Amino acid sequence: MFSLENAQSLLNQIAFAARCGVTVEALERGYVRMRMPFGPNGNHIGTMYAGAQFTLAELPGGLIALSSFDMSRFFPIVKAMNIEFKRPASGDLITEVRLAEADIQAIEAQARSAGKADYGWLCELKDESGEVVAQSQNLYQLRRR
Amino acid sequence: MFSLENAQSLLNQIAFAARCGVTVEALERGYVRMRMPFGPNGNHIGTMYAGAQFTLAELPGGLIALSSFDMSRFFPIVKAMNIEFKRPASGDLITEVRLAEADIQAIEAQARSAGKADYGWLCELKDESGEVVAQSQNLYQLRRR
Repeated sequence: MFSLENAQSLLNQIAFAARCGVTVEALERGYVRMRMPFGPNGNHIGTMYAGAQFTLAELPGGLIALSSFDMSRFFPIVKAMNIEFKRPASGDLITEVRLAEADIQAIEAQARSAGKADYGWLCELKDESGEVVAQSQNLYQLRRR
Repeated sequence: MFSLENAQSLLNQIAFAARCGVTVEALERGYVRMRMPFGPNGNHIGTMYAGAQFTLAELPGGLIALSSFDMSRFFPIVKAMNIEFKRPASGDLITEVRLAEADIQAIEAQARSAGKADYGWLCELKDESGEVVAQSQNLYQLRRR
């Protein structure tokens, strides 16, 4: 099983993610919580640049896969993301993603038999007060190696 | 009028964009061409991380605004982006965006009278051979200061 330390170490291998300072705060089978710090990601008008928000919304797709699926047999790719920016972000952002046990099993079963299976969710990015500043509909695919 | 040098200097003020090494190769009223280098943006499986592709697709929205609208009276925000990843990117990516003169005038006229006007386009990200590796539907809004 993928540990929190493994997850952060993997993120640090994606130079783009490492430069943002994004962190994994919690990781379990079917659950991840991540934080994007404001500090290195402000733009010229003092809000968090949209690309940092996209990155925070996208990364859970891989981490949930790593914590939930058998990575020796499958790997994830991102197929599409629809992201909507609802209000300016002026501090750290947090996201939590959950994938139910029944869904984990159904996705892996389909990938095992068909070679691939789509999965995804609605992802909310919240500020420290819990306000949603952006939301995205994420679509990934689990593929058989 | 916003020059190529002004544009690159502005990008360098967005730390997130500067870290990616993205460059503005051409900028005119209603036209921008940008490049995202592969080097600093690879992921753990040797392709360009999705967040770098998003960033290349998003940035033209602001640069086209700067080169086309009166920035002393208006400013742009990004409202939404739907991005679809079509194939792995293993080298630099390039994007070109055009906004027709009639559209520039109509958007600015609406922002002047209504206080805001949406604008956007379909954005293609191409590799050096001209293959489309990702495409996005981008929605921005021009707002009166």
